[in-house]
Amino acid sequence: MYYSQFLSRVCMPHAVLLQPKESWNSSKSNDEIIVGHCTKVPRNSNLEKLRSGYLFPEISRHESEHLQKNPDASLIRLGIGDTTQPIPDTITLAMAEQVRGLSTIQGYRGYGAEQGNMALRKAIAGKFYQDMGIKANEIFVSDGAQCDISRLQMLLGSNVTVAVQDPSFPAYIDSSVVVGQAGELEEETGKYGNIIYMNCGPENDFFPDLSTIPRTDIIFLCSPNNPTGHAASWQQLKQLVEFAEANGSIIVHDSAYAAYIRDGSPRSIFAIPGAKEVAIEISSFSKFAGFTGVRLGWTVVPEELLYSNGFPVIKDFNRIVCTCFNGASNIAQAGGLACLSTDGYHDLCKVIDYYMENAKILVDGFTSLGWKVYGGKNAPYIWVHFPGMSSWNVFAEILKKTNIVTVPRRGFGPAGEEYIRVSAFGQRQNILEAIRRLNSFL
Amino acid sequence: MYYSQFLSRVCMPHAVLLQPKESWNSSKSNDEIIVGHCTKVPRNSNLEKLRSGYLFPEISRHESEHLQKNPDASLIRLGIGDTTQPIPDTITLAMAEQVRGLSTIQGYRGYGAEQGNMALRKAIAGKFYQDMGIKANEIFVSDGAQCDISRLQMLLGSNVTVAVQDPSFPAYIDSSVVVGQAGELEEETGKYGNIIYMNCGPENDFFPDLSTIPRTDIIFLCSPNNPTGHAASWQQLKQLVEFAEANGSIIVHDSAYAAYIRDGSPRSIFAIPGAKEVAIEISSFSKFAGFTGVRLGWTVVPEELLYSNGFPVIKDFNRIVCTCFNGASNIAQAGGLACLSTDGYHDLCKVIDYYMENAKILVDGFTSLGWKVYGGKNAPYIWVHFPGMSSWNVFAEILKKTNIVTVPRRGFGPAGEEYIRVSAFGQRQNILEAIRRLNSFL
Repeated sequence: MYYSQFLSRVCMPHAVLLQPKESWNSSKSNDEIIVGHCTKVPRNSNLEKLRSGYLFPEISRHESEHLQKNPDASLIRLGIGDTTQPIPDTITLAMAEQVRGLSTIQGYRGYGAEQGNMALRKAIAGKFYQDMGIKANEIFVSDGAQCDISRLQMLLGSNVTVAVQDPSFPAYIDSSVVVGQAGELEEETGKYGNIIYMNCGPENDFFPDLSTIPRTDIIFLCSPNNPTGHAASWQQLKQLVEFAEANGSIIVHDSAYAAYIRDGSPRSIFAIPGAKEVAIEISSFSKFAGFTGVRLGWTVVPEELLYSNGFPVIKDFNRIVCTCFNGASNIAQAGGLACLSTDGYHDLCKVIDYYMENAKILVDGFTSLGWKVYGGKNAPYIWVHFPGMSSWNVFAEILKKTNIVTVPRRGFGPAGEEYIRVSAFGQRQNILEAIRRLNSFL
Repeated sequence: MYYSQFLSRVCMPHAVLLQPKESWNSSKSNDEIIVGHCTKVPRNSNLEKLRSGYLFPEISRHESEHLQKNPDASLIRLGIGDTTQPIPDTITLAMAEQVRGLSTIQGYRGYGAEQGNMALRKAIAGKFYQDMGIKANEIFVSDGAQCDISRLQMLLGSNVTVAVQDPSFPAYIDSSVVVGQAGELEEETGKYGNIIYMNCGPENDFFPDLSTIPRTDIIFLCSPNNPTGHAASWQQLKQLVEFAEANGSIIVHDSAYAAYIRDGSPRSIFAIPGAKEVAIEISSFSKFAGFTGVRLGWTVVPEELLYSNGFPVIKDFNRIVCTCFNGASNIAQAGGLACLSTDGYHDLCKVIDYYMENAKILVDGFTSLGWKVYGGKNAPYIWVHFPGMSSWNVFAEILKKTNIVTVPRRGFGPAGEEYIRVSAFGQRQNILEAIRRLNSFL
């Protein structure tokens, strides 16, 4: 209901009802008359700019409409990148123990540190940043990457310029608009003013051609990329770090899918020498551990990262975390610690292997149908090319003919069409069934 | 370490190291020379404005310093309002069951609705808003009130004027500064420009004298109040709703302590007729259910609440929640649902009774020592008056002489001194021991 087009409204005090209707009904035919009280509080102009309809709720709406028309359809959801496999016992046992402890005097815990439990921060530093010089106090535990993207935007404020990959996960741009970094939406191009869109396609190996990108304060880069599935190579990330150094920019590197890298590409931007002076990294337990509903992530802000006036970014981020956040759930944090135990990590790797086997099945399936396929080798996303076609049309046709939900390219940014993203999260039998349906109906 | 005074820094490229030290050391004696890379990203000027040191980390720092000087001191923490009693079994059993279910195909859940599970939203509407006309879709489940205050500030943006109680919970003002609603901090008064401070003391029954308050877009009101412990009466809240109606303002009502009300005062602003057209309510499971570490809260945005242009606030808040948040942990939400079951609610009421018995002991104890005491009747906070004294001095003296941690008035806003807040959260034996120490040493 929230995603319907907003009809402009005219606020009328109750008293106006007493007048003839003609006298207060405006000339605009699609005005919706609000009879009642309007406050005098102005709507946030940043939100006014924001394109209506966040992508994933939009996809859900299409799903629901399809199901209303076809109540017996057996949907296979390869759209929203949502984990489907059970969390290994080692991890849920640790969380259950933490939960039950909350019913005892000894085990009860109230507020924890806003930055996260030190044991977990240390474990993250040890497991993911060994030999990169990242310290536990540079790791801020969060309730997930999307939430931390917004907190980072609150940190940065409205007075910075931003570059974003196109295609990209919509939260970067939408949160930029919310905090006032963006100009108006140009209806013709679908682009916001003041945002630099860095095109990433097969022509540039899915990595921005930095020779064509103007300097911005902030560069968002997601690797392995959502949606293209491309993992930036050592060479590509090294170029980016040098570009940021030369321009005095800050890279916000989203490594939420790092655990899916298979080919030896860097799993963290901090594997690149010099990155600590130019980068922040956002990461997550969501796709690594099936914690999409449990909610746990982290952000790394190195002490070496400084604003132009020499002030350490970590001090301001710490302040944002203490003021705007109160720490991730202590139950989720206990789970996070179990994920990084020897047994937990081993079990999770098997789940990731399972999804990557799904990815291979999807890559092979689409390829054998004659479509050019990218991604799926270092990420749980397959990026399928349908030359010359509108991506929403491809999305709609696949949904209509096969009851499979995907995500159209257009949902990830304005620059292109012709692609859909297919998620490798799902039960194996559904992935196999999806390929069967595609073979039969496309 | 983050709270130390920031020394102004001068960024120097590596190359400068090759020059004689004298040539790059600036004339300012307290400059800290950063040798290395500074980005060219400007520090967010809103964060530059923000007074250094968020209150509760400041208190922790004082605690730590005291413990360093007195390693054998047996501290009693009546400072930070943190719950201490175990969570009833009925509730942790429900959470443990949810957790263990995540290890099964049938019980596994990934992303939930950003707004929260509908069953929980319905239960909240039914338990706390019966007969007030609040619908489940107007309730947004969150990871806690402090987090939702920030999300509300992102919603409102920088172009609104704000009034805040003085004293008040520091997150309202700090988050106002972060999003750019405030002017500069005036060192002399301790007040930020553009913020209206509404004094609340015994002279006005701890409620703003609305005849002296200029119109603002937003009015933050916390009832029962943190820190004064005052629960606004029916008459007071009715006046406030009428004031907001007349001025076209939006009230942001924080009812995080509503469960502690004993005298029949309204537990929700929506108990007041007309409030749905002028108010948002933030609330929490933290103090109601001992969920300070589990993280769960909610915010009510009625459909009737409209911006000056007639646009419904709920649509923008929904957009903020979908863009900047990804839902509360599904484990915490299962716990929330159990809190609202007949058994869970009954058990929680007993825990609240226990804290309120603590409050009575503290009220009686301070009163018998001859101090004037407010609060503690409808809230777990005691507001003790030390006429003519600096509140940080009272805080320091009590800490030094009795090893009891409290919170000084000054931490809650600039307008006053003379008070400390004493929390009634704590084990009974600690509360009794605190009174013994106060009797012996003050």
